[in-house]
Amino acid sequence: MRKLKLGMVGGGQGAFIGGVHRIASRLDDRWQLVAGALSSDPERASESAKLLGLSRSYASFEDMAKQEAQLDDGIDAVSIVTPNNMHADPVIAFLNAGIDVICDKPLAATQEQASKIAEAVQSSKARFFLTHNYTAYPLIRQMQKLIQNNALGKIRVVQVEYAQDWLTTDVSNRQADWRTDPQQAGAGAIGDIGTHAFNLMEFTTGLKCISLSAELHSFVPDRAVDDNAHIRLRLEDGARAQLWVSQVAVGHENGLRIRIYGEEGSLMWHQENPNQMHFTKFGSPTQILTRGFGGDEGSRTPPGHPEGYLEGFANLYTEIADVISGNIHHHLVPDISSGLDGMWFIQACQNSSANEGAWIPR
Amino acid sequence: MRKLKLGMVGGGQGAFIGGVHRIASRLDDRWQLVAGALSSDPERASESAKLLGLSRSYASFEDMAKQEAQLDDGIDAVSIVTPNNMHADPVIAFLNAGIDVICDKPLAATQEQASKIAEAVQSSKARFFLTHNYTAYPLIRQMQKLIQNNALGKIRVVQVEYAQDWLTTDVSNRQADWRTDPQQAGAGAIGDIGTHAFNLMEFTTGLKCISLSAELHSFVPDRAVDDNAHIRLRLEDGARAQLWVSQVAVGHENGLRIRIYGEEGSLMWHQENPNQMHFTKFGSPTQILTRGFGGDEGSRTPPGHPEGYLEGFANLYTEIADVISGNIHHHLVPDISSGLDGMWFIQACQNSSANEGAWIPR
Amino acid sequence: MRKLKLGMVGGGQGAFIGGVHRIASRLDDRWQLVAGALSSDPERASESAKLLGLSRSYASFEDMAKQEAQLDDGIDAVSIVTPNNMHADPVIAFLNAGIDVICDKPLAATQEQASKIAEAVQSSKARFFLTHNYTAYPLIRQMQKLIQNNALGKIRVVQVEYAQDWLTTDVSNRQADWRTDPQQAGAGAIGDIGTHAFNLMEFTTGLKCISLSAELHSFVPDRAVDDNAHIRLRLEDGARAQLWVSQVAVGHENGLRIRIYGEEGSLMWHQENPNQMHFTKFGSPTQILTRGFGGDEGSRTPPGHPEGYLEGFANLYTEIADVISGNIHHHLVPDISSGLDGMWFIQACQNSSANEGAWIPR
Amino acid sequence: MRKLKLGMVGGGQGAFIGGVHRIASRLDDRWQLVAGALSSDPERASESAKLLGLSRSYASFEDMAKQEAQLDDGIDAVSIVTPNNMHADPVIAFLNAGIDVICDKPLAATQEQASKIAEAVQSSKARFFLTHNYTAYPLIRQMQKLIQNNALGKIRVVQVEYAQDWLTTDVSNRQADWRTDPQQAGAGAIGDIGTHAFNLMEFTTGLKCISLSAELHSFVPDRAVDDNAHIRLRLEDGARAQLWVSQVAVGHENGLRIRIYGEEGSLMWHQENPNQMHFTKFGSPTQILTRGFGGDEGSRTPPGHPEGYLEGFANLYTEIADVISGNIHHHLVPDISSGLDGMWFIQACQNSSANEGAWIPR
Repeated sequence: MRKLKLGMVGGGQGAFIGGVHRIASRLDDRWQLVAGALSSDPERASESAKLLGLSRSYASFEDMAKQEAQLDDGIDAVSIVTPNNMHADPVIAFLNAGIDVICDKPLAATQEQASKIAEAVQSSKARFFLTHNYTAYPLIRQMQKLIQNNALGKIRVVQVEYAQDWLTTDVSNRQADWRTDPQQAGAGAIGDIGTHAFNLMEFTTGLKCISLSAELHSFVPDRAVDDNAHIRLRLEDGARAQLWVSQVAVGHENGLRIRIYGEEGSLMWHQENPNQMHFTKFGSPTQILTRGFGGDEGSRTPPGHPEGYLEGFANLYTEIADVISGNIHHHLVPDISSGLDGMWFIQACQNSSANEGAWIPR
Repeated sequence: MRKLKLGMVGGGQGAFIGGVHRIASRLDDRWQLVAGALSSDPERASESAKLLGLSRSYASFEDMAKQEAQLDDGIDAVSIVTPNNMHADPVIAFLNAGIDVICDKPLAATQEQASKIAEAVQSSKARFFLTHNYTAYPLIRQMQKLIQNNALGKIRVVQVEYAQDWLTTDVSNRQADWRTDPQQAGAGAIGDIGTHAFNLMEFTTGLKCISLSAELHSFVPDRAVDDNAHIRLRLEDGARAQLWVSQVAVGHENGLRIRIYGEEGSLMWHQENPNQMHFTKFGSPTQILTRGFGGDEGSRTPPGHPEGYLEGFANLYTEIADVISGNIHHHLVPDISSGLDGMWFIQACQNSSANEGAWIPR
Repeated sequence: MRKLKLGMVGGGQGAFIGGVHRIASRLDDRWQLVAGALSSDPERASESAKLLGLSRSYASFEDMAKQEAQLDDGIDAVSIVTPNNMHADPVIAFLNAGIDVICDKPLAATQEQASKIAEAVQSSKARFFLTHNYTAYPLIRQMQKLIQNNALGKIRVVQVEYAQDWLTTDVSNRQADWRTDPQQAGAGAIGDIGTHAFNLMEFTTGLKCISLSAELHSFVPDRAVDDNAHIRLRLEDGARAQLWVSQVAVGHENGLRIRIYGEEGSLMWHQENPNQMHFTKFGSPTQILTRGFGGDEGSRTPPGHPEGYLEGFANLYTEIADVISGNIHHHLVPDISSGLDGMWFIQACQNSSANEGAWIPR
Repeated sequence: MRKLKLGMVGGGQGAFIGGVHRIASRLDDRWQLVAGALSSDPERASESAKLLGLSRSYASFEDMAKQEAQLDDGIDAVSIVTPNNMHADPVIAFLNAGIDVICDKPLAATQEQASKIAEAVQSSKARFFLTHNYTAYPLIRQMQKLIQNNALGKIRVVQVEYAQDWLTTDVSNRQADWRTDPQQAGAGAIGDIGTHAFNLMEFTTGLKCISLSAELHSFVPDRAVDDNAHIRLRLEDGARAQLWVSQVAVGHENGLRIRIYGEEGSLMWHQENPNQMHFTKFGSPTQILTRGFGGDEGSRTPPGHPEGYLEGFANLYTEIADVISGNIHHHLVPDISSGLDGMWFIQACQNSSANEGAWIPR
């Protein structure tokens, strides 16, 4: 099986998510990182590339897109791991150059940027993938399948939350700074982690949100973006959901949790203990499903050998490799539509909150 | 220490909460049940009394109030354990007869009934107690104290939920029937269990709710009361809360859970595992506080010897005995104001939900 | 139903287990405490009796046995809640007086005392009950039933442990002092809590231990009894067990835990979270059984309303009342044979440990 | 940083642990797999190599050792991932060829094989590493450090267990067959997983076992190796340990669990939930330490982003790369002495069990 060649924009020294993408791409040996424009600061870009042993380092993503497109052994895809407001330009440049794009979420910092990306996706023959990594955990895939197979009956209620505490104070560091800057991030907790929760809810239930009502809040003085949000959602087929997002919830590290209740059963999963899931058929004892039970999709090891965040992320890279290699036609990797869904979610939350929680239709 | 004499209205054969009140009253040997009007059906009342070995059985609460008030060894207090719409009449009768009243929650089925009770409390010299039993669990008392002592700093967010699944279908039985009848119950899940959650939130945080926005739902076809509710609340001092109440949440037996987040710490407690509580100071590892840690209020056994629902309920009866005996002046047993708070909560939820989630001020 | 009259020997002010017995006897309203010789110190006995409102207080258990036997409304049974070395004399006195005896465990401090008790039980027409309270928890009864119904297949392995930490240091207090005095206690951890674990293992599995090999240890300097024990056991039908008892296991409050593995399934239960139990059929997901699932024996409240230590203890008192009242013929309350089993366990552990872990046959 | 070149012996199609080693070596981008003798069946070896894109495939490990030693770009190290009885020959061949060896555990199937390996290690200038992967989990490293820093005081008791259920029946498959064949495996559960538990105990406590007493058992009819073991251990400084190993413990997937009790505190960790650990100082509430707390050694992601089995394994490969590259002088990777410790453990268990649990000195 030919190893695919990967490029990266962003992800230089000091970055967080770039390193995660690199490990994820490597895990199943389907990708080789060969090129990068790892920083907008050319010197840092070059040094970072040297540290990673990259054969081709570029001073700008524009150069990279142009030149890689013309190489015989140019990259098969590029990962965009820059802050939100720096997604659109490189994404569009690579799409226009005919190179497949793997973009971190959320799609963009503004609706305008998002629309431009969507247009580029539309007009390019290259593919676009969005790394909503949590939907690639094996038990989340299992959850989706159980629901598709009607294990819960008609869905009634979804309780989803994503709680962290690392922004409890007005901390300043490389990760915090751009994420709390409205220019660079576009939104606070609802963009950074709320979009994951929203995506997870729609992915697992198969139900689209049709309207929402939100109250956003900034608890830390002088913070310019939201750090807590309480959201009510109406889903297709009469289901109701409640979503909580917080980055000031002391005691939570990365607390993404979803609970889905149907007429006949329920499912519960918590990202921090991702190798098990509770499944209850009404009237019967709760069952603890473990990763690997009832199918092994996306598992590398048997039950009892915990896999986690990096393996989930790696599943996306492996599926993308399958798609690009033409091995499979259908796939579960989020694409531009999930990206636009997330942008609607952010904007609807902001609009609703600015209007005392008015219901915002989709 | 003189044992107090207790009477009971309701709680005959087939009832649930009456038996709980009786065990609770007995646990610490402070009460003796001596009289009752255990059913509105005189035959059932008499049979039930015989089974319980009651010395004085009455065919009606009116007779009971009148006669007990005139006995030398008449009851010190009466427990009212009837359906919600049958609280007001006996409560008022006993208060007017000068007999202390212990009433199950919620206060009443309608605001009108509640107001009449409040007037009777106002004009009577007898005392009125409301059995919001969950606030008497030792760790809930500990939670309140920790917050009073500023262990969490300023409160920011409260997440509270009360989820059950016993009304997932249109089951018909003695407990379900009156609780889903708008006439007898006044409300569905929000009254039956939502008032507990609301009370617990205000009790532990010491913060009053100043407005709320709610969406009520009846998922079971033809159910005339709510069986699921998603509620946002604004509390004093800028805190924000989210409350979920459901009786169709498959997999939850009696899932009352509260999580409180402040600027400096958090506390989490779950009723189904009530002998421990998580406490996190920001930046430090989460601690597992167990019942008995840092004080033993309301505990009968050392840590590691689980106490639960009956013991929590018994704490109320023992505190009430202390109050009535004049042993203590201040107490934590909920009174008429908690009852009226709960009635406001019910009505505000219904109003808000009827108006697309409009914010209802207190 | 006639309320039975209870007497008590021991359990005066400052005692622990006497208070537990009193609450347990009261919980289901089947007993009334009317007489006592609550302390060997007559003054303390009299004061304690007054505090409890006892109508008949005796200065010695000998007087009590003699006089109660002659009263028309004499006690139906007596609870013996003294230190281990003070069980035999009162037990024998009451048995000889024809009064039923409820005795705390272990049976005695020495084999000699135990044998005398056994002889008295043999020769008296009065009944003898031993309060191995943990076998009366509803889920333990359920565990026994599941095993009897062959839910696990042939039993292979049992892992049982009872870990506490309250004797981690050479603490001195009323409870610690007699429990670490070889004269009064006869043994350390193996007697105080090991007998519970041993009894629980035999009760749930229905398998008798046929030989054991033990290593006892005293970690606290100058402690004259064992505070930690590692024990291997061979059970009937080829099953093997491992038992750990410790009172110096930091972090454990009252950690009695049992796990039973058969050819086709397993069951696990932990006393500190006694309202649930894990049940796994080989090849299927683990199920969480909750109290009340599949039968309600010994439950007073529905699933989700935690019951615990006091309720379990109360189940014994209620069953004893049933037996004494002649309501039921068969019962699960431990009797003299469990007491002798426990004494064998203690002695075998001590013998084995003194001989480098030699196997001691039953 | 130069990427090291890795070879592999064993690990062809259908193997389990070979694939784990490959992922582990790749995770941190420090190794490149370039050569292999992936199967003793030359055809399978060649096909497997092709699938993995290996540049150099050998028909035998002897050829591989000889030829790689002479290449300018020969491998820096070889991983031996064959069944236990096929460790010695390749290990010795590569050591003699001057090539560093990474060997899976246990060291060998027999003491004789183990001794030969030890001699080769002694006489070769090449390095030898043993993949006791569980000791490379970040929280296990943290546990070791806490104990070294005296957080528990003097160690008293260790409870360690490794329970699985995949050999509950007489299943036949590629993994089960050689592991239950005395020729290939040398021992059953005690070799396959008991050595991990024993190693983990000595690694974390820093205490050597000085003697042990064991009872081995084969519950599955006709099984020629042990599938359950109950072991008592005496450690240095008077500590006592109990170890349970089972592969017939229904409900356990990969249940490696260790609990360490000292005079002043305790630590507990469970491999199936490896991102947290319980830490109790005597008299204080239990703390939940999460991966990343108090140092990040061996972590790639922040707390709350679960890492697990593959990441732990990868830590070994990265540390080995550091050692080989000369970046660090001291390291925590197990070496020949851990291998010999494990062999002593296996033999002592077998000897003791054959002699009614006699104590076998180290």
